[in-house]
Amino acid sequence: MKTSYTPKLITAALAAVLTFTTTVAQAADALPSWNEGKSKQSILDFVAKVTKPGSPDFVPPAERIATFDNDGTLWAEQPLYFQFRFALDRVKALAPQHPEWKTKPPFSKLLSTPKEENVAVSEQELMEIIIVAHSGITTEEFSQIVSDWIATAKHPKTGKLYAEMVYQPMLELLAYLRANGFKTFIVSGGGIEFMRPWTEKVYGIPPEQVIGSSGKLKFELRDGKPSLMKLPEIDFIDDKEGKPGAIQQHIGRRPIAAFGNSDGDLQMLQWTAAGSGARFCLYVHHTDAEREWKYDVSPMGRLEKGLAEASAKGWTVVDMKQDWKVVYPFEKK
Amino acid sequence: MKTSYTPKLITAALAAVLTFTTTVAQAADALPSWNEGKSKQSILDFVAKVTKPGSPDFVPPAERIATFDNDGTLWAEQPLYFQFRFALDRVKALAPQHPEWKTKPPFSKLLSTPKEENVAVSEQELMEIIIVAHSGITTEEFSQIVSDWIATAKHPKTGKLYAEMVYQPMLELLAYLRANGFKTFIVSGGGIEFMRPWTEKVYGIPPEQVIGSSGKLKFELRDGKPSLMKLPEIDFIDDKEGKPGAIQQHIGRRPIAAFGNSDGDLQMLQWTAAGSGARFCLYVHHTDAEREWKYDVSPMGRLEKGLAEASAKGWTVVDMKQDWKVVYPFEKK
Repeated sequence: MKTSYTPKLITAALAAVLTFTTTVAQAADALPSWNEGKSKQSILDFVAKVTKPGSPDFVPPAERIATFDNDGTLWAEQPLYFQFRFALDRVKALAPQHPEWKTKPPFSKLLSTPKEENVAVSEQELMEIIIVAHSGITTEEFSQIVSDWIATAKHPKTGKLYAEMVYQPMLELLAYLRANGFKTFIVSGGGIEFMRPWTEKVYGIPPEQVIGSSGKLKFELRDGKPSLMKLPEIDFIDDKEGKPGAIQQHIGRRPIAAFGNSDGDLQMLQWTAAGSGARFCLYVHHTDAEREWKYDVSPMGRLEKGLAEASAKGWTVVDMKQDWKVVYPFEKK
Repeated sequence: MKTSYTPKLITAALAAVLTFTTTVAQAADALPSWNEGKSKQSILDFVAKVTKPGSPDFVPPAERIATFDNDGTLWAEQPLYFQFRFALDRVKALAPQHPEWKTKPPFSKLLSTPKEENVAVSEQELMEIIIVAHSGITTEEFSQIVSDWIATAKHPKTGKLYAEMVYQPMLELLAYLRANGFKTFIVSGGGIEFMRPWTEKVYGIPPEQVIGSSGKLKFELRDGKPSLMKLPEIDFIDDKEGKPGAIQQHIGRRPIAAFGNSDGDLQMLQWTAAGSGARFCLYVHHTDAEREWKYDVSPMGRLEKGLAEASAKGWTVVDMKQDWKVVYPFEKK
C-alpha cells in the first residue's frame, strides 16, 4: 500500500476533512447568540458566497483573511480601556521601588487618588504612565506579568475578570469564520505584547495573528544569555491610518472582511472594502446601556465618521441591543 | 447522523489526517537530496524527538516555529544579492523618466557602466539606488513589478531564473518540517515586499509568514480610493540584533528551530537556542565552488563569528559540497 501514500492523496484527504468541517458549520446555527435579522443574515450571506466553489465570489482559503479590532469590538472598553487599567495597577505595584513618585506627577496624582476613575491626568501624562508600565523589563517578564493580571484583575462595574468581558456573539463569529477556512487576525490599537499572552486561549487567535501598538525592543546578551528588553520608546501606534499599513507589514494581503467599532477602525474598513471581489465590513455599535454601555462619542471609542460611511456604503452595523441575545459569555443560561 | 458531527469528532478526524501525514513523512526519505551523514541525521533526530507524543522533548504543534534566513540560506546570494540586481534593473527601467540621472551619481555611474558587476558605488550610494527602486509607488504596483521581474530576469552566471536558484535540499527541509506540524517563516534582511510576491509559490511560505526589512508606508485616499504608498524612508532593517526583535514583533513566540548562513543570522540562532526545551540551529556553509560558491567572508555573506559559535555550541553546520546531492532543483535527474 506504500504507493498510495502520495502527497495528492494526503491533499485529497485534508480537503475532504475541510469540506466536512464546512458542511457541519453550515448545518447547525453557528451564530446562536445572534438574533435573526439583517446583521446576522449579512454575515451568513457573505460567508456562503465566498466559500461556494464555482461561485463568482469564491475566494481561495489562503486569501480568506479577516481582521478584528479588539477594544470595543471583541471585548468591552468602558469606562477605561482595560489596558489602561493594567497600566495603573502596574504603576501601583512598582511604586514601592520608586519613592520619588510620591511627589512626582503624574505618578503622585495616581497614587494619592483612591478611585482610579477620578485621577485627572492629561493625555501626555497617561502616555507617560503607560510607557513606564510597559518597559524596563524583558518581553518574557512582561508576558508573565500580563498573564498574572489577566487571571486575577476584575472589572470595577461587573466584578468579572476582564477576559470574561468578551462578546459572546463575536466569539461565535470568530469560530464560524475559522470553520469556513478564514484566518482571523486582531488589528488593535492596544499593545501587541499586552494581548498576545491571552488571545489564543480567549479568542482562539495565536500570537502570530495579533497585530497591535508596540514599543521598541533591544536585543541584549546578559551573561551570554540573550534577552529582548522592552525600551521606554514607542515603536508604532496601530490606529487609524496606521492600521492598513500594519496589515500590509504583518500579513501582506488585504483582508476580505474587517470588523471594528470606532473611527479608529475606519481606514482598516476602507482598505478592506476597496479590494476587488466580495468584501465585508462590519461595525459593532454600542447601543445597550443596560447590558453593556451606550455611546457613540466617548474618550474610549468615537463612532461618527464611521457610522456615516457605513450608512453610505451599506456596511453592516450591529445594533448590540437588538442584534445580540447575550453580550457576555457569563449571561448564557 | 446529525449528532455525530461534533467538534470532537472533527478534531479527531483532523488529528487522524495529521498523524497519517506525519507517518508518511517519516516512512519515505523526506530529504532525498541530503547525503546520509551528521547533518541530515541531526535534522531527523530533532524532528523525531519534538514530535513524539510523550517524549520529554515533545513540543505542541502550535509552538513548532521554524525561522529561515533567505539570501544564502534558501537561495543563492552571489555575486550580488538578487534584490540588488532587481534594484539595478528597476533604476534602468526608470531612467527615461529621469533625464537628470545621466549626470547625477550614483545613477550616472550605473547607467554608464555596461556590466553591473563593475559599477563602483559606495554602500551609501547603493542604499540610495535601493530606496529609489523600492518607493514612489503603491504596494500593489510594487508587487506587480516584482512578480514580472522574478518571472523573467536571469542570473548572469547560470542563465537561470532567480527563483530557480533556490536550494533543493532546503525546499525538502521546509516541506518536511511542515509535514511534521511546523510553521515555517522567513526572517530575512531582504525586503519584505520584495519576497512576498513569490515565496508562497517557490517555498510554500505565505506572505503572512515572511518577515524582512521594510520601508515606511503611507495610507492615502486618492479620489476616495485608499492606497498604501511606499515612501523613500527605511522603516526597519531585519538583520543581526534586529532579527530576534522582528521575530518577537511578528510571531510573538520564540522559534524552536532556526536556519541561517551568515553572522547576520547569529542573533536569531542565539535567541532560538536560548529557549527552554529542545532547540535546533543550523548554518548553511558555502563550501562548493563548483556547483555554487565557496566563501566565508564575502560582502554578500560573512560567516566567522557564527562558525565559531556553532562549533562551540554543537549546532549543525551544513557542508554544501559534502552534504547535498544536488544544490538547485534543475540539477535533479
